[in-house]
Amino acid sequence: MIDTVTVIGSGRVGSAVSARLRERGVAVSSDAGDLALLCVPDGAIAGLARSIPLGPWVAHVSGATRLGALDPHLRRFSIHPLQAFTLARGPEQLDGVWAAVTAETDEARAVATWLAETLGVTPFDLADDARTLYHAGAVFASNYVVTLQRAATLLFDAANAPPQALEPLLRGTVENGFELTGPIARADWVTVEAHRAEIRERMPQLDQLYETLADATVALAT
Amino acid sequence: MIDTVTVIGSGRVGSAVSARLRERGVAVSSDAGDLALLCVPDGAIAGLARSIPLGPWVAHVSGATRLGALDPHLRRFSIHPLQAFTLARGPEQLDGVWAAVTAETDEARAVATWLAETLGVTPFDLADDARTLYHAGAVFASNYVVTLQRAATLLFDAANAPPQALEPLLRGTVENGFELTGPIARADWVTVEAHRAEIRERMPQLDQLYETLADATVALAT
Repeated sequence: MIDTVTVIGSGRVGSAVSARLRERGVAVSSDAGDLALLCVPDGAIAGLARSIPLGPWVAHVSGATRLGALDPHLRRFSIHPLQAFTLARGPEQLDGVWAAVTAETDEARAVATWLAETLGVTPFDLADDARTLYHAGAVFASNYVVTLQRAATLLFDAANAPPQALEPLLRGTVENGFELTGPIARADWVTVEAHRAEIRERMPQLDQLYETLADATVALAT
Repeated sequence: MIDTVTVIGSGRVGSAVSARLRERGVAVSSDAGDLALLCVPDGAIAGLARSIPLGPWVAHVSGATRLGALDPHLRRFSIHPLQAFTLARGPEQLDGVWAAVTAETDEARAVATWLAETLGVTPFDLADDARTLYHAGAVFASNYVVTLQRAATLLFDAANAPPQALEPLLRGTVENGFELTGPIARADWVTVEAHRAEIRERMPQLDQLYETLADATVALAT
């Protein structure tokens, strides 16, 4: 179906994707492939798509960007591997990952499915107009987890506790199926209030974050 | 040093701890052990400690509770394994985990260290008056991660995307060393504003949470 893929962009996603394609024996060319895969910042997609002559398949890997950004191409789709990629690792970052596919035709979906299978990710359909909600969800489950880790690290530093101890805790929270434990699960408001008083005193920049998350935990997780 | 441990409480922590002690060949008795390990809700610790005749070592496994709750015992310490335990799993939940030890004497620290090694956790010292900051940090890195997963699930459900796709994303965020990716890392405020507008429209209960976390991400993670 696709013999040669032109991967444009060598950032976090482009690097991992190129490495995986090569690993799987797909030719990755610098131009004129059967599929041009745009692994560039969201704002650069539309201009780049317009600069590509009509003919090959054109796809982007953005979670947030609508298919219309690939105009005037009609042989098009998007595939967004749901992972927080780093340049420090390789194609193994794709293992076990899911990917949102947006396609307007069966033919486009078939090419996207081939690409997902080749990359070793599990595809699922995402409607073009559902992207913003989907992408906001991904931000909660990844970027904002980073923020929580940073907040926790500040508190551990202040308590003279080793921040590396947080990592197995976070892993365990995922492994254990996101079961809520801790003071809010036990309706232990004395402890919650003690946290807030100490944070206000020693780490006031985290007060609103703690309070908003405590309220959200009661609303969403109990 | 300790031949028999009396584990009091068979909740999330007590069950995993008892199973691990047995696995390691330590006798777990229902009373009169050399060490009484109180694995009970925080509010029950002080009353229970007072009911135990002076003599054996007495310890609790609470992150938030001060050693004074073990009065009148002086042969005492606390050990808090930093994990989100579930009854659905066994002693393997202790593997790779760190544990905060609070001890007032070298002898108490030696008993706590023996217990940590027996449980297979890595001990670190925690000052009694640093507990509240430490415990608040643990809440950020575990309980509030559950809250983010619930928020992300609501958004994925609304987008008709499979919530199970969030789990490898979360794992990858940890594996990749909590490197911030996504729109805020790219200073892509158009996408952030699009998320907020869509959340206000479709999922208003998450608006304040998204906004507070976006602000905190800028402050802490960029």
